[in-house]
Amino acid sequence: MIVGKQSIIFENRPAIIEMASIVGHKEGEGPLGHEFDMVLDDDKIGQDNWDQAESRLQYDTVKMLLKKANTNAEDIRYIFAGDLLGQLIATTFGIGELNIPFFGLYGACSTMGEAISLGAITVGGGFADKVISLASSHFASAEKTFRFPLEYGNQRPLSATWTVTGCGSVIIGNSSGKVYIEGITTGKIVDYGVKDSMNMGACMAPAAADVIYNNFRDNNINAGYYDKIITGDLGYVGQRILIDLLKEKGYDIADRHYDCGIEMYDAETQDTHSGGSGCGCSASILCGYILKKMEKKEWKRVLFIPTGALMSPVSFNEGQSVPGIAHAVMLNCEKM
Amino acid sequence: MIVGKQSIIFENRPAIIEMASIVGHKEGEGPLGHEFDMVLDDDKIGQDNWDQAESRLQYDTVKMLLKKANTNAEDIRYIFAGDLLGQLIATTFGIGELNIPFFGLYGACSTMGEAISLGAITVGGGFADKVISLASSHFASAEKTFRFPLEYGNQRPLSATWTVTGCGSVIIGNSSGKVYIEGITTGKIVDYGVKDSMNMGACMAPAAADVIYNNFRDNNINAGYYDKIITGDLGYVGQRILIDLLKEKGYDIADRHYDCGIEMYDAETQDTHSGGSGCGCSASILCGYILKKMEKKEWKRVLFIPTGALMSPVSFNEGQSVPGIAHAVMLNCEKM
Repeated sequence: MIVGKQSIIFENRPAIIEMASIVGHKEGEGPLGHEFDMVLDDDKIGQDNWDQAESRLQYDTVKMLLKKANTNAEDIRYIFAGDLLGQLIATTFGIGELNIPFFGLYGACSTMGEAISLGAITVGGGFADKVISLASSHFASAEKTFRFPLEYGNQRPLSATWTVTGCGSVIIGNSSGKVYIEGITTGKIVDYGVKDSMNMGACMAPAAADVIYNNFRDNNINAGYYDKIITGDLGYVGQRILIDLLKEKGYDIADRHYDCGIEMYDAETQDTHSGGSGCGCSASILCGYILKKMEKKEWKRVLFIPTGALMSPVSFNEGQSVPGIAHAVMLNCEKM
Repeated sequence: MIVGKQSIIFENRPAIIEMASIVGHKEGEGPLGHEFDMVLDDDKIGQDNWDQAESRLQYDTVKMLLKKANTNAEDIRYIFAGDLLGQLIATTFGIGELNIPFFGLYGACSTMGEAISLGAITVGGGFADKVISLASSHFASAEKTFRFPLEYGNQRPLSATWTVTGCGSVIIGNSSGKVYIEGITTGKIVDYGVKDSMNMGACMAPAAADVIYNNFRDNNINAGYYDKIITGDLGYVGQRILIDLLKEKGYDIADRHYDCGIEMYDAETQDTHSGGSGCGCSASILCGYILKKMEKKEWKRVLFIPTGALMSPVSFNEGQSVPGIAHAVMLNCEKM
């Protein structure tokens, strides 16, 4: 059902039937390390290079997901997936072998929100029984793409985030499940003109504020509707901006805001500066932690909002700003 | 309605309400030049660089589309869009200002098929009244990304294609329209192990053959069901492979196959070697030519199959193969 300006409420809530998450070694040492299905010993996973390691991370996560759900790739109608690399190359070589009809998505670090939204639309519209939604990132392939090869040993400013090595993946279906998708609010590109690619929290916070505001307004609710409002990877800097921007609009989310980027690492002991980032950050925490909390009904209603900074090495060098985008998914532990 | 292994047939066919196309100067001099809504005099469109020119091409195409449809950006629920550049940077700065909730897509040159498929699912499922689907490419931004900067003046092998400067865009809605979307068949990643990025037709033809075969089988039809079977940018080399592969499976499409890449230029006088390519190739010919033919009912049923080669400069230099993907859209001039 179309609601307000940019939201959908599902009359038959699509179900999250199963989830799986794999993270890197450093993420495994963080405060949520014990929550993930698997922690890598070797972040290269025996591959020749970092790009192929990220592909392998995706492949292994989907294989684990299918095993946990006791199902086969042939029973999955579509896979909605993406990563941060140019031309989605980690995804191409990650999920290609599975032979599942594939929609490639790019939403920067908001990709898991985009993948779940489109998966839910497809299942909710009656066009598939089961789909997979997935997003991944890898510290080493991302550093090489967006900053410097690791071998240079360059230093990083304190406002910079640490790209998470991780992959999260869910099966969305029309049967009963562990958690349900009540609705979605799809984000617009929001450009405040910030040009500092080492401070992506500031670039993304306005987009997160915009989509949360529209979710509240479209559904005629406020922050109290949710047990938690969970953004992707704003970090400490972005979190403050988000809370302030929503306060200006009359909404206070401070007591229930949670940012995956802040929670992934122990910033003091792990030297990760402003927090974690990358589309694998929110995707792995969703699948490793958030959905489990909801399955146990410790959190009943969650607004999950992966946040993306839309830039490329080219746009940055050409002096462009870094616009943000964020996609909100309304998660509910009840089928109806 | 779910049909067979990887197809959907829409019970209420989503309508293509309006379409718009803009192409570059060279494309305007080709055999279809007079069909497009606008031909650029200056392919840089007054911008500072080629990436920004491609963004401007997208922006101008959507503005023209909205004007032709006598509607506003606020009436569009979602935009499904993508381009060939890393991190979809042409799209970010092309459609950002329009303030339309945005799903970023990457399917290499198959992106228009992906964008129409997801647009049709969203409208067909009752989740939007009107959406826009769009894809673009630009010769100069693509050469710089995938091959060499134009300033190097390097030579190109005869199997290489010429990336089209062009953008095509449609409004898909649940009202009556000019052409209707009868169904879709979504492609899988197909990897025959071809490693020659200068011969993308050979990389993509197996994916096109696979999705056409599955469209026939899922719907229990054969080539005779369609007036035309139209691929994106296989070129002369890929066309021969496609026809042969389908013959092996018992289907002969030779008398009704049309390839947008072959038709875009006059290969003899325009020095374009194996034909046109880029996601703007099939997108602009769809919007400038194919849909008009169907509106006039000269072609009643068309299978439109944009074809993509999944590679990046990184994957190519790391010695990976170039897998293909293709997404089929069943176009019908009748509402029912």
